[in-house]
Amino acid sequence: MKIVIVGGVAGGASAAARARRLSEEAEIVVIERGAHPSFANCGLPYYVGGEIESRDKLLVAPIQLLRERLKLDVRVRSEVTKIDPQAKAVTVKELESGKEYTESYDSLIIATGASPFRPPLPGIDNERIVSLRDLNDADRMRDLAINGATQAVIVGAGFIGIEVAENLIRRGIKTTIVELANQILPPWDQEMILPLQRHLIAEGIDLRLGASAAKFESDQDKINVTMNDSSVIPADFVVLCIGVRPDSKLAAEAGIECGPRGGIRVTSQMETNIPDIYAVGDVVETKCSITGDPIQIPLAGPANRQGRIAADRIFQRDSQYRGTQGTAVVGMFGQTAAMTGMSEKVLRAKGISYEKIYLHPTDHAGYFPGAKQMLMKLLFSPDDGKILGAQAAGTSGVDKRMDVIAMAIQAGMTVYDLEEAELCYAPQYGHAKDPVNMAGFIASGVLRGDQPIIHASTLADESSAGLFILDVRTTGEYAKGHIPGAVNIPIEELRDRIQEVPADKSIATYCQVGQRGYLATRLLLQHGMNARNISGGYRLWSILEDPS
Amino acid sequence: MKIVIVGGVAGGASAAARARRLSEEAEIVVIERGAHPSFANCGLPYYVGGEIESRDKLLVAPIQLLRERLKLDVRVRSEVTKIDPQAKAVTVKELESGKEYTESYDSLIIATGASPFRPPLPGIDNERIVSLRDLNDADRMRDLAINGATQAVIVGAGFIGIEVAENLIRRGIKTTIVELANQILPPWDQEMILPLQRHLIAEGIDLRLGASAAKFESDQDKINVTMNDSSVIPADFVVLCIGVRPDSKLAAEAGIECGPRGGIRVTSQMETNIPDIYAVGDVVETKCSITGDPIQIPLAGPANRQGRIAADRIFQRDSQYRGTQGTAVVGMFGQTAAMTGMSEKVLRAKGISYEKIYLHPTDHAGYFPGAKQMLMKLLFSPDDGKILGAQAAGTSGVDKRMDVIAMAIQAGMTVYDLEEAELCYAPQYGHAKDPVNMAGFIASGVLRGDQPIIHASTLADESSAGLFILDVRTTGEYAKGHIPGAVNIPIEELRDRIQEVPADKSIATYCQVGQRGYLATRLLLQHGMNARNISGGYRLWSILEDPS
Ligand SMILES: Cc1cc2nc3c(=O)[nH]c(=O)nc-3n(C[C@H](O)[C@H](O)[C@H](O)COP(=O)(O)OP(=O)(O)OC[C@H]3O[C@@H](n4cnc5c(N)ncnc54)[C@H](O)[C@@H]3O)c2cc1C
Ligand SMILES: Cc1cc2nc3c(=O)[nH]c(=O)nc-3n(C[C@H](O)[C@H](O)[C@H](O)COP(=O)(O)OP(=O)(O)OC[C@H]3O[C@@H](n4cnc5c(N)ncnc54)[C@H](O)[C@@H]3O)c2cc1C
Ligand SMILES: CC(C)(COP(=O)(O)OP(=O)(O)OC[C@H]1O[C@@H](n2cnc3c(N)ncnc32)[C@H](O)[C@@H]1OP(=O)(O)O)[C@@H](O)C(=O)NCCC(=O)NCCS
Ligand SMILES: CC(C)(COP(=O)(O)OP(=O)(O)OC[C@H]1O[C@@H](n2cnc3c(N)ncnc32)[C@H](O)[C@@H]1OP(=O)(O)O)[C@@H](O)C(=O)NCCC(=O)NCCS
Repeated sequence: MKIVIVGGVAGGASAAARARRLSEEAEIVVIERGAHPSFANCGLPYYVGGEIESRDKLLVAPIQLLRERLKLDVRVRSEVTKIDPQAKAVTVKELESGKEYTESYDSLIIATGASPFRPPLPGIDNERIVSLRDLNDADRMRDLAINGATQAVIVGAGFIGIEVAENLIRRGIKTTIVELANQILPPWDQEMILPLQRHLIAEGIDLRLGASAAKFESDQDKINVTMNDSSVIPADFVVLCIGVRPDSKLAAEAGIECGPRGGIRVTSQMETNIPDIYAVGDVVETKCSITGDPIQIPLAGPANRQGRIAADRIFQRDSQYRGTQGTAVVGMFGQTAAMTGMSEKVLRAKGISYEKIYLHPTDHAGYFPGAKQMLMKLLFSPDDGKILGAQAAGTSGVDKRMDVIAMAIQAGMTVYDLEEAELCYAPQYGHAKDPVNMAGFIASGVLRGDQPIIHASTLADESSAGLFILDVRTTGEYAKGHIPGAVNIPIEELRDRIQEVPADKSIATYCQVGQRGYLATRLLLQHGMNARNISGGYRLWSILEDPS
Repeated sequence: MKIVIVGGVAGGASAAARARRLSEEAEIVVIERGAHPSFANCGLPYYVGGEIESRDKLLVAPIQLLRERLKLDVRVRSEVTKIDPQAKAVTVKELESGKEYTESYDSLIIATGASPFRPPLPGIDNERIVSLRDLNDADRMRDLAINGATQAVIVGAGFIGIEVAENLIRRGIKTTIVELANQILPPWDQEMILPLQRHLIAEGIDLRLGASAAKFESDQDKINVTMNDSSVIPADFVVLCIGVRPDSKLAAEAGIECGPRGGIRVTSQMETNIPDIYAVGDVVETKCSITGDPIQIPLAGPANRQGRIAADRIFQRDSQYRGTQGTAVVGMFGQTAAMTGMSEKVLRAKGISYEKIYLHPTDHAGYFPGAKQMLMKLLFSPDDGKILGAQAAGTSGVDKRMDVIAMAIQAGMTVYDLEEAELCYAPQYGHAKDPVNMAGFIASGVLRGDQPIIHASTLADESSAGLFILDVRTTGEYAKGHIPGAVNIPIEELRDRIQEVPADKSIATYCQVGQRGYLATRLLLQHGMNARNISGGYRLWSILEDPS
């Protein structure tokens, strides 16, 4: 068995390593265009910023290790320029010498990854426009960052853009982020990352949302970025972070089927439409593990596991890729945003019916020092309570809760299962009723009809139809700020003052985060009133009200 | 509906709060012996040590809040002295006045918790022997700790003993822990907490394992603890932390059925054998969610959720308690031990067949600063791979992994499901192949026969039967220390030097943590040799070898 692997980093190297473990006999050739296989793509921004000091650290599995330990035939600075499925061979170009040769295969794995997208704008070829994919890019950006640059513009506020921004700020560079969407981190729902947006601005980032670069022009040692509104931002360099496109040209040219967004189509065993050709990682179109719909989510975990599965398939193991679930995390200036499963916007776009709830739990017991509040959202099916997605943002404990819910989604669990989750509790780690349980309680309450809810986002519409908004916080909390038109009856007084609530109106109750509002809803419902709780309470309402 | 609840803290208060949400009409009487309902038991050690400065913080739901917000009839300093199931009434004694009265109920919830066990030893009634259950105890211990005490003896190294020890050290008190077992934290398997034991000793704790106190004697302002080996430890005070016993006397006297260890027997809806009497929390015997066997695990999460379920049952909701899974966590001097599911010792005691694997992953990517190694163990069924339990210990990321696996256990998942878990990955949070995936890979490899393993604990036995022990680390690593009798062939040279490995012998390979050893095993197996990898590698072997 001779296996040729095109691309030797996350997916490719994982496939090669696994193949070697499965077969000592196999000839395994890894062809990598860059100078290094197996490097830590995900560490690049932190190397630029200096958090990771040594470049060597980024070489996760140095070439020598792969050769000596795994007996892999690793060829770097070598590019596959053509795949010939009939002849079962690839054409390889040695980039140093320019020499070309063909290499035959029994099985071929395409793990070419994805390239940063470069929009066809005037001046896009300016050498001061960089992107961040490999070690070369990182070296380049690091050089720019430490050699006198004072201003940078990042185009795109996806997770790589945000990570780069944090690291440029770390280097003392004045950084502007330009993002076409009206939010950072597009995979997340907007309200979930609004607090982080504010945080970015507080850290000194000049954030321009709903804005785009129109052209780029050299100006002596600088580059001027002209925006769509004609304003001009001068910079020492520009970083393009507006997403990636599958490096599937090679495959497409060989007749390998790709999806509309360029990803190579694969089965759950990473087979392409051509026998003995497999594809893994950022270059493939895979399935959403929840809906089965085609998706392209370029992340390292899926790439690594897909590589392992492709190797398994070659050796007749029946491992199956279950699809990508969309679990993701990003850190910025001590804050974390994480998500798993589908976002609300994706559910809406797909026309999948869902309900959602919000909560603001602390990462650990409030009575123990250092507890930090997070914002959490759970999306679930209104029919059977199946968990569809979750998102959270905050200072700590965020990734933990998303990982737990990721596992629940993988298991096909429902919000009722979250109610019964038994998680680690001591006061410095969590809660006797963990945020995960709490999300389950709230969502289950909604489904059981115990807690009808209304969403802050639809409040304005419903208000015009005659809604009585009841603020059940203390008079002090109410005085500091409340939803316009809301009447204040503290929860403690509600039973005695219930005649002040109009029995013939639709009522929306709220408190600071949702818990007292829920109690008020229970109370009013049991008095035969038509009450709903504003999920996420005043805190979420305020976030939506003032997104700046 | 009139509900009387005996005990107003974790289980009792949760039941009361939920009952109120389910019914505005119900009369809900909470009878609590202490001065405060709803306090943070779990925070008591940290109040003693000063980490939690304000006593008020421990009053999670002050009595006024329960009365005003939840309209609960909370009666403190009131003890229920008798239950009369025929009359459906309880006898209440007001502790201040000594007055007694009867209170009728429609439904009764017993949430009396558990008391620290006091062994019947000579001198046990000495007033310098304290324990830690409620605020009074905490006040007492805190006073002792800050008013000149210099030496303390803690009897029992369960999680409360350890937490108290940390907090006394924090107060500058020389602290001895005396524990009958040969390890701290008895619910964990011994090898998992050996590194923590060392850590405790390094922090200045005088740890006496396999030792017990035989008698206590006053000596002026001190108390002398005479040990079973006749040595004497002088102390200013002694803290008893040798476990708790269900406070079920009241229930038993009323004819309510209890198990052999004193816990009240309940159904999955928290019903006792007597109609309209329910019991929740530390006072009950519940079921192991995995085996269905009766167990008593006195923890706050189960108590809180059971309280909620009892209230549901009273109002004809069909919530079911799924049993207790054994998820637990404890922190000590910046270290964390966590577990979920069954331990190896429990599996062995029950005669349940299991396999286990060890790994030493870091909490996040090694190339990102601050990565810390943990020790992790996964227990699973050798038949179908069902996850039976997991344990981990280390500096960070420990509780997260145990929570993820706790969810997997609840879902009845297998080690094959862990392989496919899609968890949060960015370098400061985890790994592209998270420790949870890695545990899944290893365990699945064992079950698929790809990675036969041998356990460090049985090495000595097997060695005598003629085992060839192969150390595949570098010569440098080997020189620093190795398993006696092991032959060193670095993994990189193994293919070339394979003739040095005896083909007719059983071979045990190992490296530092297990990964290179696995590769060596693969290599040898494919050469037709009978090789197994030592799970957990040299690091685990060293821990077992030198438990001190
Ligand atoms: C800056 C940055 C930060 C990231 N951070 C995270 C993160 O925090 N978490 C996360 O999950 N993911 C992160 N990612 C994404 C993650 O790195 C990718 O999803 C993953 O590396 C994809 O693996 P892959 O094997 O498909 O592609 P890659 O790892 O990109 O490897 C593809 C390789 O193929 C080579 N190649 C391409 N074409 C050819 C050819 N014709 N011939 C020979 N070689 C070829 C390329 O040179 C490249 O080295 C990050 C990516 C970047 C760039
Ligand atoms: C120091 C300490 C630290 C802990 N740390 C943790 C931790 O980190 N994580 C964790 O999960 N668990 C922890 N626990 C355990 C947790 O607190 C208990 O599992 C939980 O409180 C049990 O709830 P419960 O309602 O059954 O009993 P409790 O919360 O103990 O409440 C029982 C109440 O009933 C009252 N009562 C008893 N008999 C009568 C009577 N006859 N009449 C009236 N009232 C009566 C008692 O006064 C008591 O207040 C800790 C416990 C202690 C003591
Ligand atoms: C470095 C690299 C080549 C390693 O590939 P790999 O060997 O498959 O993966 P790992 O090093 O994580 O090891 C996993 C294997 O070792 C085994 N293993 C790990 N620890 C073990 C232990 N303690 N005992 C026994 N086996 C162990 C696992 O079972 C698994 O083997 P399997 O797949 O045959 O079951 C590849 O992951 C890579 O190139 N990574 C860098 C690029 C990248 O991922 N970038 C994106 C993120 S920055
Ligand atoms: C304080 C105490 C009385 C609270 O009981 P509780 O009200 O049932 O529990 P919580 O405060 O956690 O609130 C949970 C309820 O509020 C709801 N809720 C919480 N946050 C909400 C939000 N943001 N929006 C809507 N509802 C919310 C939950 O759905 C749940 O209601 P449900 O059970 O009817 O579904 C009880 O937990 C207690 O006494 N704790 C201290 C003692 C203790 O636990 N000790 C051991 C650990 S230290």
